[in-house]
Amino acid sequence: MKKFILIPDSFKGTMSSDTVCRIMARMIGRQYPQAEIVSIPVADGGEGSVDCFLSALGGEKREVRAAGVFGEEMTGFYGLLPDKQTAVVEMACCAGLPLAEGRLDPMTATTYGVGQLILAAAKDGARQIIVGLGGSATNDGGCGAAAAVGARFLNAAGEAFIPTGGTLTDIVRIDLRGLDRSLKDARITVMCDIDNPLYGEQGAAHVFAPQKGADDRQIALLDDGLRHLGQVIRDQLGMDVSALPGGGAAGGMGAGMAAFFGAKLQMGIQTVLDTVRFDEVLQGADLVFTGEGKIDAQSLRGKVVIGVARRAAKAAVPVVAIVGAMAPDAVAAYQEGVSAIFSINTAAMDFSLSRAFSEQNLELTMENVLRFAAAIRRE
Amino acid sequence: MKKFILIPDSFKGTMSSDTVCRIMARMIGRQYPQAEIVSIPVADGGEGSVDCFLSALGGEKREVRAAGVFGEEMTGFYGLLPDKQTAVVEMACCAGLPLAEGRLDPMTATTYGVGQLILAAAKDGARQIIVGLGGSATNDGGCGAAAAVGARFLNAAGEAFIPTGGTLTDIVRIDLRGLDRSLKDARITVMCDIDNPLYGEQGAAHVFAPQKGADDRQIALLDDGLRHLGQVIRDQLGMDVSALPGGGAAGGMGAGMAAFFGAKLQMGIQTVLDTVRFDEVLQGADLVFTGEGKIDAQSLRGKVVIGVARRAAKAAVPVVAIVGAMAPDAVAAYQEGVSAIFSINTAAMDFSLSRAFSEQNLELTMENVLRFAAAIRRE
Repeated sequence: MKKFILIPDSFKGTMSSDTVCRIMARMIGRQYPQAEIVSIPVADGGEGSVDCFLSALGGEKREVRAAGVFGEEMTGFYGLLPDKQTAVVEMACCAGLPLAEGRLDPMTATTYGVGQLILAAAKDGARQIIVGLGGSATNDGGCGAAAAVGARFLNAAGEAFIPTGGTLTDIVRIDLRGLDRSLKDARITVMCDIDNPLYGEQGAAHVFAPQKGADDRQIALLDDGLRHLGQVIRDQLGMDVSALPGGGAAGGMGAGMAAFFGAKLQMGIQTVLDTVRFDEVLQGADLVFTGEGKIDAQSLRGKVVIGVARRAAKAAVPVVAIVGAMAPDAVAAYQEGVSAIFSINTAAMDFSLSRAFSEQNLELTMENVLRFAAAIRRE
Repeated sequence: MKKFILIPDSFKGTMSSDTVCRIMARMIGRQYPQAEIVSIPVADGGEGSVDCFLSALGGEKREVRAAGVFGEEMTGFYGLLPDKQTAVVEMACCAGLPLAEGRLDPMTATTYGVGQLILAAAKDGARQIIVGLGGSATNDGGCGAAAAVGARFLNAAGEAFIPTGGTLTDIVRIDLRGLDRSLKDARITVMCDIDNPLYGEQGAAHVFAPQKGADDRQIALLDDGLRHLGQVIRDQLGMDVSALPGGGAAGGMGAGMAAFFGAKLQMGIQTVLDTVRFDEVLQGADLVFTGEGKIDAQSLRGKVVIGVARRAAKAAVPVVAIVGAMAPDAVAAYQEGVSAIFSINTAAMDFSLSRAFSEQNLELTMENVLRFAAAIRRE
């Protein structure tokens, strides 16, 4: 075999997609020293997403002075891909949970800095901006980010302010006339792997605010705020984001990106596949390795393995999924183009013990899959 | 692929080798409906060994009236293979632990019935008799079996008796002149996978008698008896079985078979490979599936997987080992001809939980290995 593509998701809790790629590539190099190996660690939108794109495609990381999660000035960054047309922003950079460690407060946390990163990328000439959601400490419905690029939010007294989770209900008017013109020509794509709506029982506040530090009273206030924001957006911008799947991602950032930035929400894997021009990469490939922490019937809903498999199947390239765990119902993946699934568990061992051996087990599994391939192909 | 050979060991504690073969064959049949499948469930010498040989080669089970583990009359059996020249006796049939359940007593348990089975096979014309050791409740050094075929054991008073574990020290003279003549032309091979010597710290009594019900005092007596037997054999038969590897197998049955029956002790897998004419079976095979409960550096010492792999390597047929657990040091198996090793564990789960899913996990693993093979061979 002469050409391998590595395009795994992370193994949640044990290995990043970059680590998985690195180990896979090393083991392939041993068995097939002459082979071409294309490594595409899949970004999930969260922390590390910019590095994933840069690792897959090259490009550069550009630093930007921007506001942190509570408005403090900090150095953020975005990734500019080699085409100089495509930028990648990860929300976690300026609005991530680690920045708020020890002082979690979704009532006051802001996405303002994220807007600054997007604006910097647009001003630098990016015409396609990928924004990764995930790992946020905010619940501001993306109002902070919108304010950073020129949106004005006015209260009952007609005063402009920058809404945060706790002040969303104060919004009386939204004025987008002042949006920075450099954004006009930029298409913005949001990487968003969850379906939650903006508000309600399954909304951003009820489902995700607890892990951002909200207590029951605050959750109710945050949910009210997001509901109010949805109404104002509908009334004044003529867009209904209240039921938008993924609108509730990252504290309502999904809805805000759609409403204020005209962004398109899509599964992260589709964004990655499009951006790396996966259909072209597949040409001439003998085998694709993908993988994730656990494959089950849920995985079929647009997750990495299935996203990869569907495209590879069209190109008739075999796809092997290497996984941490395989549920019996994962067999449905075969219909989607997955050729075979191998679990990295080399012995019967509880995850609390086996997790320490994840890298070693991935190595062993890759070695055996590759040895088997070579043996039956008589290579 | 057109021809598969299945030759797994049992997965100790979860699946018999016959069950493993059955599942493997079913999964191959799904992927390669036209393929020829040769199933050789490996016998380990213990209970079920006769069935393994009959399952692999055909033949018939012949019933024999014989003495049970405490001398009571029972119906035993041996297997006669299709060549009508080769018989298989499993010691556990007349001297096994299950027969002594609730009244374990290695001081009085006897292998007399085993000798009767061997004799019956010889009288029926078998010229090659395979005797499987394992799972015995006895500690009589094979004296009972020898007595059943005509050996005489005399005490200090010159009286003939049938020694058991507790009376071995009474043996003063051994007289083999009366051995049944039908045994003269029969070659006897003993399946023996352990190295323990007849007596001493690593001997039969110290290592195995506890599980046969012996207390500390009895263990010492049994060990003395086996030591005495070794001396009498050396003095009167001119054969030193005291250090014979495997002499301590099955309560000293290994040593007794060598001394009284002229038997050759060898690893069970070698016996199986020779008996099924494995080198001929390998001709035209595309892939061999073997397996065992756990593969590790220990497995390299003549166990099933390695025994199979060495022969397959000579014939250049790839060998895949499907295992319950793979230790990191199992990679040494590659040098011996194992092409690849796959563990059946599909998730991180303790053995106490996963054992219930052994069959399902084996199915899943086989399915994926076969799908992978078909995909990369573009079949």
